[in-house]
Formats: sequence, C-alpha cells, structure tokens
Amino acid sequence: MTLKLYELVGVEETRPFSPFCWRTRMALAHKRLDVTSIPWRFTEKAAISPYKSEKVPVLLDGDHAVADSWAIANYLEDAYPERPSLFGGAGGRAMARMLNWWGDIAVIGGVFPLIAADIHAHLRPEDQDYFRNSREPRFGKSLEQIAANRDVAVEGFRKALDPLRLTLRTQPFVGGEAPNYADYILFGGFQWARAISDFALLKPDDPVYAWRDKLLDAFDGLARKSPGYPV
Amino acid sequence: MTLKLYELVGVEETRPFSPFCWRTRMALAHKRLDVTSIPWRFTEKAAISPYKSEKVPVLLDGDHAVADSWAIANYLEDAYPERPSLFGGAGGRAMARMLNWWGDIAVIGGVFPLIAADIHAHLRPEDQDYFRNSREPRFGKSLEQIAANRDVAVEGFRKALDPLRLTLRTQPFVGGEAPNYADYILFGGFQWARAISDFALLKPDDPVYAWRDKLLDAFDGLARKSPGYPV
Repeated sequence: MTLKLYELVGVEETRPFSPFCWRTRMALAHKRLDVTSIPWRFTEKAAISPYKSEKVPVLLDGDHAVADSWAIANYLEDAYPERPSLFGGAGGRAMARMLNWWGDIAVIGGVFPLIAADIHAHLRPEDQDYFRNSREPRFGKSLEQIAANRDVAVEGFRKALDPLRLTLRTQPFVGGEAPNYADYILFGGFQWARAISDFALLKPDDPVYAWRDKLLDAFDGLARKSPGYPV
Repeated sequence: MTLKLYELVGVEETRPFSPFCWRTRMALAHKRLDVTSIPWRFTEKAAISPYKSEKVPVLLDGDHAVADSWAIANYLEDAYPERPSLFGGAGGRAMARMLNWWGDIAVIGGVFPLIAADIHAHLRPEDQDYFRNSREPRFGKSLEQIAANRDVAVEGFRKALDPLRLTLRTQPFVGGEAPNYADYILFGGFQWARAISDFALLKPDDPVYAWRDKLLDAFDGLARKSPGYPV
C-alpha cells in the first residue's frame, strides 16, 4: 500500500517547499517507502481538518493519519522497524528531539527572515494574503522589511550553525558515517530555502555547504531533482 | 583496578569545578566505575604533559591515558560496553557529538562571562595570574568588565537554552526517560557554575532548573555533595 503525504506547495504543484515536509520526504526515502504526494496550500485547511491538523505534513498510511514531522518520524520508526533506522537506537531518538528544536530555532528560525519575501512571491494570491497576514504580526514588520536586512542577517545565521559546522569536522553526517533523521531535520530548512529563493545561505567553502550537497544527492538526487534555485 | 582522573581545582582541593571534568565524573558514575581524583591546577602543566595534554580531564585506566572529555566518553563506552550505555546506540553517539558542540558554545560559552570573576576568586595567586592572562585577551576586557554586565547577559544565556527547555517539555532528560551522556554534557556547565559562583543562572520556575536538580541528585547526590553554592 502506497503512503500519501500532504505537502505544502505554492503556485506550482511540483515545487514542494516546506522544511517540515522535506524532513518527512527524506525520512520516507531513508525507510525506502514509496509515497504519493498530495499538493496542499496554506489556505486549504479543510482538506486536512479530518486529520485534526491545520498544518502539513500529514501522512496517510492506509486508515492511519499522522500529523507533524516529528510525530511522523517516530511513527515511521515504530511502524517499519525492519527498514533502515531513522535514529540509530533509543539514545539517538531522544537526542534527535533536542536537535529537532535546535533545527526549528537556529535553522528554520534563522532562514525565515532571509527568504520571507521569496516565499510570498511563490504563492497564489489567496495564499499570499494568508501568509502575509499570519507572518507579519509575529515580526511587527512587513515581509519586505523582514528581508531588507538579509545581507547582514545572513552572517548571524551562518554563525549560529557553528555546532553543526564543528560536528562535520570529525564525521560526515550528524547521524555519523551515513545520514539519518538528525540530518534530515536540519537539511529540511536548507531545502526549503533552495526551493523558493535564490539567496545564498551558505558560502561554497563552508563544510555545511558540502554536507548539504551530499544530502541533495542522497536517494538518487531526490532533493536536487525537486524544483529549486542552484545556490 | 581503580581509574584515576585529573580534575581541575582551585584553592580548595575538594572543589572540582571544570565543566569538562564534570562531564567525565558523571560519565564514570553512569558506568558505575570507581575513580580516584587527582587534584590539578591550571599551572600544573608538567603533571599531565606525559599524557600529551595541557588540559584536564585526563583519565588514567591502568597504563592507558585518555585526554579530552569527548574522547574519554567514547573510550569508556568502548572499553566498558557491558556497563550502562552512555549514548544509547550508534545514533546517539553521533548526535551527542553535535550536542557536545552546542554545550560548548551555548552552555559553557554562555556561562563563562557570567562567572569569570568568580572563577578567579577561587584560584591560588599563581593560577589567578594564568587565568587572567589567558582569558582576558580572548575578550579584550578584564574579568571584572566581562562580568559587569551579567544581570543583562544572563537573559541572553537563558534564551539560548530554548532547545533544551523545549525538549524537556516532552521527556525528562535529553537522553530520554533516564539521563545519559547528552545530559552530562550540558549539566557539566551548570555544575561548573554551581561550584564556583553564587550567581543565579536559572529561575526556579524554569524546566531547566528542575532538570538540573534531578542531575544534582543523580548517583546518590554525587554533584550536589560536591562543594558549591545553593542557587
């Protein structure tokens, strides 16, 4: 039975861009599970309300629905234990919970101001209104004002990646010799930016850049083949 | 055979205070390994030079010496695999590498300016000179200037703990249901401060405060029984 995944898109149905959906996409590929994508847009709350969620990703596995990328990763690990592990054991699962929060704050939170206006540019008009009206109050600024300072703000974002950068000095992936869910957590934020923005988050000589490149190539280039900007 | 651990102390031989040594102390207790402490001071480089290190912790296990808290944790996990695991599997070991860097930056790096002057006050005169002359150039300020702003700086420190704080919403320890090395990594920084400073790093209603309390009580109160300030 093929799994189904509600994934965030904008004007183009074939350009999934949510950092959380990309975490799940990579996790499904890691588990060697086929999935059918169901494009979903910010204002299509009704489509996922039966699954008691207002956000994507929402995963459908037969009659079972799971919302939230962290819950989905745990569901996949438990429901498909014979397939490659996402966490590499109980310790990894517990520690990944903290890396997930770090990823939400340092990566997704750090990236958002840099690409906020670019996200808006990729949405349908009704979704643009939703996006602007829901995001601008959080910052007390317009999307354009949020992005205006990005040439300076990106320096702070890059600096905040030091724990990841330093880790990559002695091991190729956060998960160790091969990537696991810890990597997909963090990669999701970079793939989100890549899908929607031509702004260069990373310098080419940054070890994080090389790590991102390897994840773009993983699973037969799953992430690289998805529409994005080559930065 | 009893292990031996070179541990940083100041004026008082019975007040070990290094955050890195405390990581190792807790790891040894987790592994149920007895250890004899060898007090060591900043300027006693000659005592550990045979072990090719200028810093502590240095662990002696018979003829084998291991320097650096991260290397020691990995050594203990490999040398004593039948004892309680520090990492909970290969995934945990890999992810702990990143949490170790996060701990170095957000916890130890965040705490240092808050307690710099208090560390100095606990050292012997010759170690005071070493400490001042090695630390002040890194900041371009005197120890007293570094600490002067701490009532404001502590707010930034507390905010930076959000990934830890949010993790503790859904699990009692970073390592899961019970503490493991991921917890000791972060706890070491708090125990360092507790040993040497009466400055309140955390508010009592902070989930991080409750987590620290549980680790102070772990292993029959190993950390709480060590000299410190009740904050």
